Amino acid sequence: MAIIMGDNQYGKAENRVVRIYRDSARHEIRDLNVTTAMRGPFAPAYLEGDQRNVLPTDTQKNTAFAYAKSVGIDSIENYGLALARHFVTDAEPVEGARVEIEEFAWERVVIDGVEHDHTWTRAGREVRTAAITVDATGEYVIGGFKDLVILKSTGSEFAGFLVDEYTTLPETHDRVMATSLVARWRFGTTDVDWNAVYPQVKAIMVREFATLQSLALQQTLWHMGSAVLEAIPEIVEIRLAAPNKHHFVVDLSPFGLDNPGEVFIAADRPYGLIEAQVLRDDTPPAHDAWRFSAGLA
Amino acid sequence: MAIIMGDNQYGKAENRVVRIYRDSARHEIRDLNVTTAMRGPFAPAYLEGDQRNVLPTDTQKNTAFAYAKSVGIDSIENYGLALARHFVTDAEPVEGARVEIEEFAWERVVIDGVEHDHTWTRAGREVRTAAITVDATGEYVIGGFKDLVILKSTGSEFAGFLVDEYTTLPETHDRVMATSLVARWRFGTTDVDWNAVYPQVKAIMVREFATLQSLALQQTLWHMGSAVLEAIPEIVEIRLAAPNKHHFVVDLSPFGLDNPGEVFIAADRPYGLIEAQVLRDDTPPAHDAWRFSAGLA
Amino acid sequence: MAIIMGDNQYGKAENRVVRIYRDSARHEIRDLNVTTAMRGPFAPAYLEGDQRNVLPTDTQKNTAFAYAKSVGIDSIENYGLALARHFVTDAEPVEGARVEIEEFAWERVVIDGVEHDHTWTRAGREVRTAAITVDATGEYVIGGFKDLVILKSTGSEFAGFLVDEYTTLPETHDRVMATSLVARWRFGTTDVDWNAVYPQVKAIMVREFATLQSLALQQTLWHMGSAVLEAIPEIVEIRLAAPNKHHFVVDLSPFGLDNPGEVFIAADRPYGLIEAQVLRDDTPPAHDAWRFSAGLA
Amino acid sequence: MAIIMGDNQYGKAENRVVRIYRDSARHEIRDLNVTTAMRGPFAPAYLEGDQRNVLPTDTQKNTAFAYAKSVGIDSIENYGLALARHFVTDAEPVEGARVEIEEFAWERVVIDGVEHDHTWTRAGREVRTAAITVDATGEYVIGGFKDLVILKSTGSEFAGFLVDEYTTLPETHDRVMATSLVARWRFGTTDVDWNAVYPQVKAIMVREFATLQSLALQQTLWHMGSAVLEAIPEIVEIRLAAPNKHHFVVDLSPFGLDNPGEVFIAADRPYGLIEAQVLRDDTPPAHDAWRFSAGLA
Repeated sequence: MAIIMGDNQYGKAENRVVRIYRDSARHEIRDLNVTTAMRGPFAPAYLEGDQRNVLPTDTQKNTAFAYAKSVGIDSIENYGLALARHFVTDAEPVEGARVEIEEFAWERVVIDGVEHDHTWTRAGREVRTAAITVDATGEYVIGGFKDLVILKSTGSEFAGFLVDEYTTLPETHDRVMATSLVARWRFGTTDVDWNAVYPQVKAIMVREFATLQSLALQQTLWHMGSAVLEAIPEIVEIRLAAPNKHHFVVDLSPFGLDNPGEVFIAADRPYGLIEAQVLRDDTPPAHDAWRFSAGLA
Repeated sequence: MAIIMGDNQYGKAENRVVRIYRDSARHEIRDLNVTTAMRGPFAPAYLEGDQRNVLPTDTQKNTAFAYAKSVGIDSIENYGLALARHFVTDAEPVEGARVEIEEFAWERVVIDGVEHDHTWTRAGREVRTAAITVDATGEYVIGGFKDLVILKSTGSEFAGFLVDEYTTLPETHDRVMATSLVARWRFGTTDVDWNAVYPQVKAIMVREFATLQSLALQQTLWHMGSAVLEAIPEIVEIRLAAPNKHHFVVDLSPFGLDNPGEVFIAADRPYGLIEAQVLRDDTPPAHDAWRFSAGLA
Repeated sequence: MAIIMGDNQYGKAENRVVRIYRDSARHEIRDLNVTTAMRGPFAPAYLEGDQRNVLPTDTQKNTAFAYAKSVGIDSIENYGLALARHFVTDAEPVEGARVEIEEFAWERVVIDGVEHDHTWTRAGREVRTAAITVDATGEYVIGGFKDLVILKSTGSEFAGFLVDEYTTLPETHDRVMATSLVARWRFGTTDVDWNAVYPQVKAIMVREFATLQSLALQQTLWHMGSAVLEAIPEIVEIRLAAPNKHHFVVDLSPFGLDNPGEVFIAADRPYGLIEAQVLRDDTPPAHDAWRFSAGLA
Repeated sequence: MAIIMGDNQYGKAENRVVRIYRDSARHEIRDLNVTTAMRGPFAPAYLEGDQRNVLPTDTQKNTAFAYAKSVGIDSIENYGLALARHFVTDAEPVEGARVEIEEFAWERVVIDGVEHDHTWTRAGREVRTAAITVDATGEYVIGGFKDLVILKSTGSEFAGFLVDEYTTLPETHDRVMATSLVARWRFGTTDVDWNAVYPQVKAIMVREFATLQSLALQQTLWHMGSAVLEAIPEIVEIRLAAPNKHHFVVDLSPFGLDNPGEVFIAADRPYGLIEAQVLRDDTPPAHDAWRFSAGLA
């Protein structure tokens, strides 16, 4: 019996790259959190501390900032692809590169009805994400978002479930349904108009969440995922993780008050957690596209 | 020499009260985090464990939820005033009540150009706050917000400062200025259209931040505060706390790249921290309006 | 009516200063989070953007790191006093300085029964704090800690409380009591063996929490505070903030199980919040010792 | 082309289960965060909202609390195995169950040299974890910890690395090395003295971190992992994720001060991130043991 190195990767996590475009008086801003990771013949670094093949994580950081200038940040997918291709192509021992990016949205402030040229407030809505993998098997782009907090105050039921000796939950045909959605969608190609697809995907998922009379959060997730796949041919697979953020109706009857779904307590923990994958039956293999999703929870 | 009880208060912090208005098909939502605290003759509870005067924090919680139904949540200021008046008026030993509220904003989702009746996404922008105090000296309302993250990519300088032996900072006449602003404004009256004033205050502060050619974050804060006092007579005092969220220009010259204010690293810590109070010269006394700001940082 | 500048201060928050002592093979480590703030004639910086009196926050940061070397970090109180005195004495316009420090504890690892010379794990227990103020009225030192999470599984009651129409809480004579204590104690002198006093204060508070048959968290706080004042003459005032971290007995009767105080659900929110001040009847005035407690919640 | 359901699971995340043992005057405490998830024929819940096979997450919560009483919490591994076996055995449609647990450590307080019977402080050190999977292919137990923050002030080098056009990092032969280690180890059997193995694993990893003259964090991880596998035959695989928490030497030369590795700034972001798997060459297949690691980051 021997002990061996298995999968491994290393990189620089959470580079906070901010890019201002100031070519005209009307500036643009892109605000990113960039994580890079290298895969390849790095076993000597582990087994003997031999760094000859190791591109330092500090160098990866420098590259992420330099590329924000030299390549620019048109979309996080293209910027990430450029970075990943560089590491695999130009850093000789590197066999695979993984780039994970979060993008924080900013909204231009409006003053007396006019958008301001160089001032924004952070839009606290969902964080757009990308995870790019480039290796010998190909190029893989996973788009996505996290922290899309969405709530509907009616149009959600939960009934007809399995009952055992530990079941005390009553059925309900009208409840609040809320989640903080994480969605990640894998593209089957890199020939994509990334910035056009993103709002399309989000709009479809929001529409399905809002309009489906939901019998379960599971059903809502399926409708969200399959509707995206139906509408956008470049996407071949979608993964969803949805905490069921419980809003419990407060019993106000001790105080002589009726409460027909009007006053709720929003609970922190525990929460339901539903995870699902929706894909095409001819989805190409993912290889390492989902492996070691590093800096982004 | 004797040891004595000094100031004290007790209450229930962070009640997550969610109120849905469903009187028509178009629902409304108010999403709050409510903290209550009682002041009065509670020394026996400390000295001897005598609870006779102590209205349990659990009762305070019940009251917060019951009032969300019976009084409703038109504005957090009015809801908080109703709660505070109740405790002082109806709970006999209570001499002073403090209610602190955070309100989380939700945005109605738009589907095919139409606002949806009962689905929202959480708008991650600033959190609106209120701190209400009712006691024998009067009624005090402090409005406010926190976490207003705002950035300008030009129009900010820092130069002409004091230099000593530990000073290494170069002067700059064009930098990124960003903060996550906390603002709290005290009203001199309770006869206020709370929901009308709030967006006015925010708009004025955003306008000043954006349009002033800033020589220091201090100067920006003064302009934000004094402009609010000039415009809104009901406000008598404003307090501001502003972290200077540093964005450092990255030196790309080792890579043969120029960087004229285009690529920045956003730093987490340390950060500058500027705190200021702006008020009228005839501002009435605050008494305990600012005392023991409990659950809300 | 005029609009005027009120209280203000500015500084650098959360400098993460780590000091290693390596004079012998057995190294020592001090791990701090340091916040400094200046008070004085800074109105021109606000009103006109005039920085001539402003010692940049970047300079304050440099000074904090330089003093970690030149003065060293024997205790956070002495290091903070040295910094505050420097700013007031050496930076001419500065009239008052405030230094707030958090210290993170590390424990030497033990290998085969022997303490290691240069390796530690972070001890996740309470964070020691200090807040030092130096101005024209004198020198003020506030010691303290935060995040001391302490729990007793019996010896705690809550009964005999005020009952109103919103009260549903049953009385209890045996409950879990838990808190995450914040304590801050003001010294009446700077002639103190700081590192000796700290463990004494903590031991007294822990002893009172554990051994008192508690009729209310309020009563426990009084005993903790007054016992410290009785034992340590240099301390003239103590302030305590204690969230009541509720542990609710779970009703297991639907599953045919008895639960005599054995299985609890630990709740996140809401929580009780008790705040109290205990002091000597001849406590000297605090002046600005408690004003604008900046970066440290 | 059709759209199909892929992998999925659902459950209840972050049940905060606290168990007190009070059979004698000397109480014991176990403080857990429990996440359960079900796998099986749940596609109808997604596709048609048909809940007939769905054991509600609320029922899973009830079961977790009931088992804390009926089975008890001797070790998190045994408690988790009991829960997982129950779901697979007793809830008819469930084919696979996943239970993930975090355990928070408490330390008995010591008063006048004597351990107290029923009072503890939370020991903020690492969080012990377990992830148990039971399905048709067998039973899988993954032990682990997270948040073990460990630092050495010397005995760490980084040199001889690959250099490219973006490399600016100087070599070093004496640096601070610090990480917040996440480790997870898979057992090849369930016939294990869980509570005896845990401190053994931790002690071995701490010993390797401290005593190895490290040429890279990678090398340290390999030594930590392989030493565990050498010592503990029941463990067949270990996975490690280690952020390189950078401590940068502060340049004090502008202030006339030397800084031979004494004063550091601890940086938040970015950080290096090293991930590695170490295993036996005859490690049995993991099947779904690592799939969908739900509530535990």
